[in-house]
Amino acid sequence: MKTHNYSAGPSILPQDTVKNTAAALINFADTGLSLMEVSHRSKEFVAVMNEAREMFKILLDIPDGYQVLFLGGGASTQFFHIPYNLMEKKSAYLNTGAWANKAMKEAKLFGEVVEVASSKDKMYNYIPKNFEVPQDVDYFHITTNNTIYGTEIKEDKDYGVPLVADMSSDIFSRPVDVSKYDLIYGGAQKNLAPAGVTFVIVKEDALGKVSRELPTMVDYRTHIAKDSMFNTPPVVPVYAALMTLKWIKAMGGVGEMQKINEEKAAILYDEIERNKLFRPTVELKEDRSLMNICFIMNDEYKELEKDFFDFATLHGMSGLKGHRSVGGFRASTYNALPKASVIALVDCMKEFEAKH
Amino acid sequence: MKTHNYSAGPSILPQDTVKNTAAALINFADTGLSLMEVSHRSKEFVAVMNEAREMFKILLDIPDGYQVLFLGGGASTQFFHIPYNLMEKKSAYLNTGAWANKAMKEAKLFGEVVEVASSKDKMYNYIPKNFEVPQDVDYFHITTNNTIYGTEIKEDKDYGVPLVADMSSDIFSRPVDVSKYDLIYGGAQKNLAPAGVTFVIVKEDALGKVSRELPTMVDYRTHIAKDSMFNTPPVVPVYAALMTLKWIKAMGGVGEMQKINEEKAAILYDEIERNKLFRPTVELKEDRSLMNICFIMNDEYKELEKDFFDFATLHGMSGLKGHRSVGGFRASTYNALPKASVIALVDCMKEFEAKH
Repeated sequence: MKTHNYSAGPSILPQDTVKNTAAALINFADTGLSLMEVSHRSKEFVAVMNEAREMFKILLDIPDGYQVLFLGGGASTQFFHIPYNLMEKKSAYLNTGAWANKAMKEAKLFGEVVEVASSKDKMYNYIPKNFEVPQDVDYFHITTNNTIYGTEIKEDKDYGVPLVADMSSDIFSRPVDVSKYDLIYGGAQKNLAPAGVTFVIVKEDALGKVSRELPTMVDYRTHIAKDSMFNTPPVVPVYAALMTLKWIKAMGGVGEMQKINEEKAAILYDEIERNKLFRPTVELKEDRSLMNICFIMNDEYKELEKDFFDFATLHGMSGLKGHRSVGGFRASTYNALPKASVIALVDCMKEFEAKH
Repeated sequence: MKTHNYSAGPSILPQDTVKNTAAALINFADTGLSLMEVSHRSKEFVAVMNEAREMFKILLDIPDGYQVLFLGGGASTQFFHIPYNLMEKKSAYLNTGAWANKAMKEAKLFGEVVEVASSKDKMYNYIPKNFEVPQDVDYFHITTNNTIYGTEIKEDKDYGVPLVADMSSDIFSRPVDVSKYDLIYGGAQKNLAPAGVTFVIVKEDALGKVSRELPTMVDYRTHIAKDSMFNTPPVVPVYAALMTLKWIKAMGGVGEMQKINEEKAAILYDEIERNKLFRPTVELKEDRSLMNICFIMNDEYKELEKDFFDFATLHGMSGLKGHRSVGGFRASTYNALPKASVIALVDCMKEFEAKH
């Protein structure tokens, strides 16, 4: 039976990424050596790093004046690297859930943090609107996609101050107007690569403005100056990322990804709304994530939750359990999840409905 | 023709590590999913992380009261994490080369740094001796193996103060008396795994003594509390590390590794001393690294350097070029480099000598 990988992350990657990375682990670029065993200074690996950076620029249409970095650690590491690099006195954060809270916590070590708005009152099941961003902050931070609660900010807005976005879980799922941001970052393990590499897209002009001394590895300028090769980069995740980027390009780019993602999400949200057993956790359509589709049993069918989970698991659905803070189910529909998997889940929901 | 991988790092790994990791990238632990695609919270991956930690404890005979961590980033990241966690006012460093210098530079952001001794006067071609470590420092830092210059501290000594060691390039090459250290760390990409994971062995009592506030990801206690799973760990390098640890155990453990490494090093150093064309860069035998064997042409044969490099390359020797600051040649003889490769290099040196 086919496994449908709905894991929230680490999560499904394109088959090309999986196969090509496994092959490179045996023989990388015809060197006769494993990708794990070659020097990162070899011309073959330097070519991988350069191409990965170029592909970012091409696929996201990144304007001049921005740099793309591939760093070790995860997005959690960037939670403190960002204020270290960008925050002199004050920053603003939009509180859309657990990840935003973790980011805010680290920023507080470096100065004053303003929470401009929060959706905590309703277990983060919406995106706050009509908030004011103080215009004297060093930056305003948003988390574009909230994996746990299934909400997503799908527009690139101007807030009048430098904008920083954690796009860990929706990067490359849609076109992004990078010019609206001073910095975009994210862990790779959703739409890009295995865990272990973090991308940072940063406007060069945004750097060098804080008065504190930065540890060498924290300072983005260190990595810009050395093309992400100041220290040994995580070679396997970087290679896998390149494979995914090539797959996105072959699929038609991020515009095409967005179309497919919207189509997949529509199929699933429509079924959740139609099916008498289920309802979505996020009410407002515009706030619903295209990447993490969260749904729960309708009140009158609450006792069927475990049954449906077992039924879906029997039908090959893997990783469908909702986060413990939300409950129910979470279908993560990242770029690499095929439409066929969504249809299989919908069939499963219909079949289960017919039985009750 | 067989390639003999003498790369200084990333470097040769056991064939078992390469093959098993490549296989897990296709189907991990019979999940039908790639190691890159499964949740790090899955029971299968949690088992990998736990076993890797246990294998560290078993192979290095780590006493109670120590914790083993697998973190993202590289040893360069630890250069600032260590003073952040351990240095209240003052630390001491032994300057044995480029890596020690980089470590010292970061510590200076956190307080006073005493360089207790340096071998810079002779391009770091020896290990300083008879130095005094100030007894009022928070810790004394050493780099046990110096990849660029081919020197190594092969004994675990007591300096009267907490001892911290960067063992990036000689971990698991010999038994270590862990009880002599408060903290041992290193990047994985020499004797353990592909780049992208850093190990930290830390005495729990050494932590929580500094008065500054630590970013969450910097604080070792964060990672101890979550068994290295506070954030998504670099799953592929951790898995590869476990494969290498199992290989070391199957080979007979670190005592056996030391015997083999001493044998390999003896074969090569003996030839370097015997061969009229070459000489070692490190004079004192006790200071010579068993991991990175550096040698240059004797003065009267200086002009043959490029010829020998080309000759060796033709004979399958890969990554033999010495670091630019030392010149000549560097044969990295990590655990996974087979004795047959050392013999092939020695044969190559003899053949080249016979021609001149």
